[in-house]
Amino acid sequence: MLRKHRNEDLIVRRIAHSFPPSRSQTVRQFLSLGIGDDAALFRPKPGHETILTCDWSLEGTHFFREKHPPDSVGWKCLARAVSDIAAMGGAPRCFLLSLALPETHTGRWLSLFLGGLRRASRKFRCALAGGDTTRRNEILINVAVVGEVRSGSALLRSTARPGDFLYVSGRLGEAELGLQIVRRGQGAASKNNLLIRKHLYPEPRLALGQWLVKKGLATALMDLSDGLSSDLSRLCAASAVGARLEKAKIPRIPAPWAAVKHGCDPMQLALHAGDDYELLFAVPPSKAKLIPETFRGLRLTAIGRITRERQLTLLEENGRARQLLPRGWDPFRRTQ
Amino acid sequence: MLRKHRNEDLIVRRIAHSFPPSRSQTVRQFLSLGIGDDAALFRPKPGHETILTCDWSLEGTHFFREKHPPDSVGWKCLARAVSDIAAMGGAPRCFLLSLALPETHTGRWLSLFLGGLRRASRKFRCALAGGDTTRRNEILINVAVVGEVRSGSALLRSTARPGDFLYVSGRLGEAELGLQIVRRGQGAASKNNLLIRKHLYPEPRLALGQWLVKKGLATALMDLSDGLSSDLSRLCAASAVGARLEKAKIPRIPAPWAAVKHGCDPMQLALHAGDDYELLFAVPPSKAKLIPETFRGLRLTAIGRITRERQLTLLEENGRARQLLPRGWDPFRRTQ
Repeated sequence: MLRKHRNEDLIVRRIAHSFPPSRSQTVRQFLSLGIGDDAALFRPKPGHETILTCDWSLEGTHFFREKHPPDSVGWKCLARAVSDIAAMGGAPRCFLLSLALPETHTGRWLSLFLGGLRRASRKFRCALAGGDTTRRNEILINVAVVGEVRSGSALLRSTARPGDFLYVSGRLGEAELGLQIVRRGQGAASKNNLLIRKHLYPEPRLALGQWLVKKGLATALMDLSDGLSSDLSRLCAASAVGARLEKAKIPRIPAPWAAVKHGCDPMQLALHAGDDYELLFAVPPSKAKLIPETFRGLRLTAIGRITRERQLTLLEENGRARQLLPRGWDPFRRTQ
Repeated sequence: MLRKHRNEDLIVRRIAHSFPPSRSQTVRQFLSLGIGDDAALFRPKPGHETILTCDWSLEGTHFFREKHPPDSVGWKCLARAVSDIAAMGGAPRCFLLSLALPETHTGRWLSLFLGGLRRASRKFRCALAGGDTTRRNEILINVAVVGEVRSGSALLRSTARPGDFLYVSGRLGEAELGLQIVRRGQGAASKNNLLIRKHLYPEPRLALGQWLVKKGLATALMDLSDGLSSDLSRLCAASAVGARLEKAKIPRIPAPWAAVKHGCDPMQLALHAGDDYELLFAVPPSKAKLIPETFRGLRLTAIGRITRERQLTLLEENGRARQLLPRGWDPFRRTQ
């Protein structure tokens, strides 16, 4: 096979070409220098703090070269990191893309990848500011996102208080079920399937996070990336509290449909499956009545309460309580 | 072999433990929220722009597990990215660490790695703000650094002008020679060797970059990470100019010593070898007399001039001129 010679500068130019300097006045205002120099220059908004976060997206760990459309890999590597901005109640501004890939993937694969990344970049209003590229046998991606939030108003994990109601957005377990369908190789033909879309093209809950900040409704906020049981346990540890969940209330995939069609337990998925990028937040009792049933079409559900006792309890449908252990996604746990 | 169970949260706690919240008033002022939440919060300095950059440090590409001390891997992954801040004339503030590593390396290797990283973090006054960790067979590192520079005063690559004098700091080719010694396995015993130190523990030229900005002496600035011929060619392309170098003036390792002891050509190293992290800058003729021979013990050398003609020329010691092609480090070039 004849391969074209592509050097690093050429790849940087291809990326720059896919992300032409924005004509948007807003972007020009905060991104004073984009890709091409030693570093990028960002002009912070007065009265705001800068939010910083980064996320790995690694072949074999977070996606499969043969199973996941490159367009989705591009979309999702940015969406995952932007979800951390939503989890602080902020607005994304720009990102750095670190990309390592085989020479065989600097053609069509790269184009499709950049296409998905560009769509996500526009959708989330998060401009490409710079990055680093190198050659590697495996496809490795790291995305660092810069966001902003009015000074002092970011919502943290560490500020939930006993008595707060716990809410989640959306329906949990959908993305994992989507992944299972994709792994079975049924993904390409049915991109419009809701579960597959949620797995391939997650939508960070930016509007919801910003609304919670603006209205001052929540005491604590985080996003669900590793599964409810693991992430809630982190929120509780950070806040030095516990939580008591009502199993019946946890929003999940309808049981007969999930079980019959996909042979899985929707409650297990809702409790432990990752990658949903929904928001989990705590609301003081005095403000719970201000939380609507849906926010811009997205369901919001009270699933339990924060407790003083520092453990996670799941109240079964038969009224019995049992301890809930963190069993979500953990790359260092070998017994999954 | 018995391996302890280490999960992701435990590794994050180990990292947090290695980087306790700073007691420095300055750090507390700009880093309002460090590791442990969904994202970090940075409080920008009024009147300043934020500098953003990131760099891969990948096993097999940028370092070798068996050859490079983990302490050096930790130091250098930060130093490389901080050098991009020096290259804008800015000051580093904080960084995000993305780390993927095998479970076998979450013990002693991680401790030593974090030791080197912490020393670099203190030396460069660049605090750990957050990051992402995962498990991987290979050691993968990505560091994103946030710096600051007074608004409008950052020095770019794209602003060199014909007639400017070109300067470099230090002596070129030293780091590559250091690498060759380390690859031969002679590194561990002779960490004090200057060449090996320059390869293992590079020092970004922060003070020099900041001084050039403060005194308004340079029209353009970049750091030398991929070799003079490649990096100068990038500066010239960005500024739409060319350059003419005088071979005799290029600061290099003394010839007999390099050639006899290590069997290499010091001029080839000085022109094309990477990893030196020295600064390359352009100075208008009216200000050239203000550039001292040394800056805080670091040699500064005028090596040529910027030309209107858009190509790189090397004036040989015999007076003949030849074209200089970019032959520095490029991960996508296969004929190195």
